[in-house]
Amino acid sequence: MNAPPNASLRWAFEDFPVGHVTALGPHTVDRAEVLAFAGRYDPQPFHLDEAAAAQTPFGRLAASGWHTASMTMRMLCDAYLLDAQSLGSPGVDELKWPRPVYPGDTLRGTLTVLASRESRSRPDMGLIHQRTEVFNQHGELVFSMLGWQMMRRRAPG
Amino acid sequence: MNAPPNASLRWAFEDFPVGHVTALGPHTVDRAEVLAFAGRYDPQPFHLDEAAAAQTPFGRLAASGWHTASMTMRMLCDAYLLDAQSLGSPGVDELKWPRPVYPGDTLRGTLTVLASRESRSRPDMGLIHQRTEVFNQHGELVFSMLGWQMMRRRAPG
Repeated sequence: MNAPPNASLRWAFEDFPVGHVTALGPHTVDRAEVLAFAGRYDPQPFHLDEAAAAQTPFGRLAASGWHTASMTMRMLCDAYLLDAQSLGSPGVDELKWPRPVYPGDTLRGTLTVLASRESRSRPDMGLIHQRTEVFNQHGELVFSMLGWQMMRRRAPG
Repeated sequence: MNAPPNASLRWAFEDFPVGHVTALGPHTVDRAEVLAFAGRYDPQPFHLDEAAAAQTPFGRLAASGWHTASMTMRMLCDAYLLDAQSLGSPGVDELKWPRPVYPGDTLRGTLTVLASRESRSRPDMGLIHQRTEVFNQHGELVFSMLGWQMMRRRAPG
């Protein structure tokens, strides 16, 4: 969000040109955490119970898709966002969960800049269009989303 | 996901015609839970610390947007999904967080069916296009998303 400029934060708009890739993770999915998250936020049986999950294409206990999204947010924070002059994000699009995420999986990801432009209304701000992709230890895509990130410019217009 | 048909689950595709509205909530946002979620998944300062949040347009400690999305998923489960013949969802679009969510807020929402059609490839399945909207106790929109829900048909084609 719109924190005042903070020179101790390392990353600014200019650090994210088109094509820039930030590596995310690794993060290993913890079984107890899968159960705790699902119990609180997404108590569908295949996120809580092995026998129930075995009757579905999941095959075994799988993490909630919202837990995967939340673990991804943590990886984004750790990779760069906590050290960035962020001005927030209006939202995200095209969240997809193409394959299940299981306890014990190790997740890695990429944040790729697709487009980048200075704000027309705010000379201190730029906007970055980016794709987040998360993969399991087999290199299979398990989560993706698109979004716009607003970032303070190091050199305002 | 693709659990086998279960006659004990009450809701099926035919129960969600265009215009159908399901009420969500209420759910009151718990401060300890805001801190725990942010600490694990979205440790940006304005989700963890009042003084830091006061320096931003949030004004005071606010919930992570991903926490709001997760609380919304719980409201959807409680309102209908746990009792529905769900065949899963390929993903969601247009997640927006137009206003902050604060500890102590009471969230209510609506799930509105925008479009509905039988699957062309699977005679036992229908697809429902729906918008989820979540409001605080002042009637202000705090979260919205669009998505497709796949649901088993009570009367297959």
